[in-house]
Amino acid sequence: MVGDSGGGTRVSAVAPLDRASAGELSFLAAAKYAPLFAQSRAGLTLVAPALENAPGPAARVVVENPYDAMLAVLPRLYVAPERVPGVHPTARVGRGAVLAPDVTIDPYAVIGDGACVGARTWVGSHVVVGPGVSIGMDTRVHPHVTAYSGTTIGDRVTVHAGVQLGSDGFGYVFRDGAHAKIPHVGRCVIESDVEIGANSTIDRGSVDDTVIGAGTKTDNLVHVAHNVRIGRLCLLMAQVGIAGSARLGDGCILAGQVGMAGHHTIGSGARVGGQSGVFGDVPAGETWSGYPARPHAEALRAQAALFKLPKLIRAIERLVKGSSE
Amino acid sequence: MVGDSGGGTRVSAVAPLDRASAGELSFLAAAKYAPLFAQSRAGLTLVAPALENAPGPAARVVVENPYDAMLAVLPRLYVAPERVPGVHPTARVGRGAVLAPDVTIDPYAVIGDGACVGARTWVGSHVVVGPGVSIGMDTRVHPHVTAYSGTTIGDRVTVHAGVQLGSDGFGYVFRDGAHAKIPHVGRCVIESDVEIGANSTIDRGSVDDTVIGAGTKTDNLVHVAHNVRIGRLCLLMAQVGIAGSARLGDGCILAGQVGMAGHHTIGSGARVGGQSGVFGDVPAGETWSGYPARPHAEALRAQAALFKLPKLIRAIERLVKGSSE
Amino acid sequence: MVGDSGGGTRVSAVAPLDRASAGELSFLAAAKYAPLFAQSRAGLTLVAPALENAPGPAARVVVENPYDAMLAVLPRLYVAPERVPGVHPTARVGRGAVLAPDVTIDPYAVIGDGACVGARTWVGSHVVVGPGVSIGMDTRVHPHVTAYSGTTIGDRVTVHAGVQLGSDGFGYVFRDGAHAKIPHVGRCVIESDVEIGANSTIDRGSVDDTVIGAGTKTDNLVHVAHNVRIGRLCLLMAQVGIAGSARLGDGCILAGQVGMAGHHTIGSGARVGGQSGVFGDVPAGETWSGYPARPHAEALRAQAALFKLPKLIRAIERLVKGSSE
Repeated sequence: MVGDSGGGTRVSAVAPLDRASAGELSFLAAAKYAPLFAQSRAGLTLVAPALENAPGPAARVVVENPYDAMLAVLPRLYVAPERVPGVHPTARVGRGAVLAPDVTIDPYAVIGDGACVGARTWVGSHVVVGPGVSIGMDTRVHPHVTAYSGTTIGDRVTVHAGVQLGSDGFGYVFRDGAHAKIPHVGRCVIESDVEIGANSTIDRGSVDDTVIGAGTKTDNLVHVAHNVRIGRLCLLMAQVGIAGSARLGDGCILAGQVGMAGHHTIGSGARVGGQSGVFGDVPAGETWSGYPARPHAEALRAQAALFKLPKLIRAIERLVKGSSE
Repeated sequence: MVGDSGGGTRVSAVAPLDRASAGELSFLAAAKYAPLFAQSRAGLTLVAPALENAPGPAARVVVENPYDAMLAVLPRLYVAPERVPGVHPTARVGRGAVLAPDVTIDPYAVIGDGACVGARTWVGSHVVVGPGVSIGMDTRVHPHVTAYSGTTIGDRVTVHAGVQLGSDGFGYVFRDGAHAKIPHVGRCVIESDVEIGANSTIDRGSVDDTVIGAGTKTDNLVHVAHNVRIGRLCLLMAQVGIAGSARLGDGCILAGQVGMAGHHTIGSGARVGGQSGVFGDVPAGETWSGYPARPHAEALRAQAALFKLPKLIRAIERLVKGSSE
Repeated sequence: MVGDSGGGTRVSAVAPLDRASAGELSFLAAAKYAPLFAQSRAGLTLVAPALENAPGPAARVVVENPYDAMLAVLPRLYVAPERVPGVHPTARVGRGAVLAPDVTIDPYAVIGDGACVGARTWVGSHVVVGPGVSIGMDTRVHPHVTAYSGTTIGDRVTVHAGVQLGSDGFGYVFRDGAHAKIPHVGRCVIESDVEIGANSTIDRGSVDDTVIGAGTKTDNLVHVAHNVRIGRLCLLMAQVGIAGSARLGDGCILAGQVGMAGHHTIGSGARVGGQSGVFGDVPAGETWSGYPARPHAEALRAQAALFKLPKLIRAIERLVKGSSE
């Protein structure tokens, strides 16, 4: 379908209708975008059946779900840029560090003593890999990441720019009129197939480890505190914060800005709505929301009731007054 | 007025009353600061009419609004430091990159292949400009910024330290037991006269673009997801998070920690109160607040009612009991 | 007790029960971890009195509170890594900068003109110290920190990776159809014994200073705006945001994701619950929570009432209907 449509059209990139040119593929999924389609110069457009005859460029392919079709096509048009293997002469590599022969280490990266970097892994510009840190194979570490000592990163992981891995957890004991720091000696373990969003922070454990389970993805500016254990295949959206020693099962979804208090558990498959505050355990498979978070249906009922309340209060006050007269 | 007051006083800097010295200008706007004024060594003070005769240093200028007057004076006393044009020998400039002759590129900056940097623009230490990224004229990029490929930055933009521009949006399709990453090929467009606060993150679009409109300012630690379009002259305060494909009109103001769910619209001129959760559309010109956000007056009434509620519940319970007997 | 137990056991590190090996110390504080203890290979275990005879490795020391005992032992087993003093040849040191003879300046650090760095202080890789910035003695600045001009850092401070100190506050005046930037010329003062969590941002003051008081600790991703003054020994947990000109007394504790509106005061010793929104003053010594924040007991009563409300509303509606018939 792509590369060469029935009419010999060739496309090599994807673009929205208003920006697509002759060599580009676009898509028309909803009637509200028909005016953009009418004026589009896209070389080829994936079109929903209901819009098959919408005025616009002639080269079109009718598919049940144009957006999904485009997603399916994307990986064939865009392959991640090939990195030329090699260690840039400005990169600093510490004593005893082990680099697989086909790694790519970009300018000004600093690899600590005894660290190891696996096959085909890319370490971006200015990345700082602490002493003894281990990074697996086929992993991509974007610029300005710091991995403190005690960090372990698996295979096929993507760490976005500005992420800080393995910094000390927030632990103090108040003693002699000061907050005495608890040394943090646990690990920060990023399992395989994880993706960590830009400027997120994942602390190392105090004695135990902080673990991000295999296949879990976090969005930007997410905070994961010391000793937290997150299961496999979870999704943590932007600005989520997880306090110390919390536990998440597998396949949990936390929407943006959710906060979770320490030492509680979210069971596997549970979902938590945006900006909710989790101050207790959330059972597996349930959907919770609100502040404090409750089962979603209960939270919705409470919110609906809240906004009816001012009107009712006036009625109640009349009643109360009436009954006490 | 400044530089040389009636009495021949010269000032060359601004400082608070308790820190100002003979060569410095300060201001006294409210009576509660009169004790600081009494002991101040400021060379010249802007004083509100009501405090004209407050005890303190003699050199004073009475103005209607001392704080505003000082703000008006500030740009004359403080000019942004002149950058000496030039490319530091430790900066790495990729093949085909185009630098205007009077740019300033600081130590250890990395400019990717085919990137371009406009006239008089400053690229700070350790900044990483991805391949093909375009930066306009008179723009200031502070240290530790990463601009991924696909990023476009306009003229007179300020990007503060640690900002990550154009990282991949948070988009996955669950397939074969894993979250398969949706390639992100849209752009991250920062229009002219924008300022982005420290450690903020602005994702690139998936197919369409993420756009920060001309003259918009964001505070620190703000997150803007893929495909979001923010209009002109908006203000996004610290830690605001905007989820995917949301739309903001022109001149919107979002107070600190506001979260906005994806695919909704905030109309031009609308304002949203601090920490609110926007889970629907906000009409142009309106002020909303609360969690979930509602028109501000309605939110205030609901909150007020909520705190009356415990008392009323006891009365209601008596009534309900009474009526059911 | 440690280093050589009664039986001649030597341990040199601490690890959780399931990961500890023969040379490592672990602890057993609660019965639920007894199964892990039974299979542990820890060389020595601190055990609570109630679990004295739990099946597991023989080398054990019974202590009242194993976790606290382990914390007490930690600093003896883990000393912060010795930094070899010296300025790495790739570090750039500006004109007039003053470095104490025994500082450690790591690769690619950039020290601005006229900056000074005190005795035994460590400046990590890629740190950017702006012109004129002053850093005290025995301070640790982790990689990727930027300290803008106008920043002052005290003694024994720890600044974690990716922290941005002294960036411009979010201040604009709307004039001639644009947000005109208010120049920021105040300082960003980090007093002694402070610790700042990874990727946090502390703005400089506009005219006055932003001050983080001695002994205060912030967790990751915390935002402190311009002109904020935070007292001594406060704890600000992850993702807290403090808006402009707010004041905190001494010993305040703000839990994760708390937001505080500008120009208000939190009195000494006050505590604010997780995710609360502080839109007014909090009296000294009190505990507040909720959105908007209220005294904690009142907030709890309101929340409890809210979740009773939907049921009551139905009863009320029957009553109201009944009484109006």
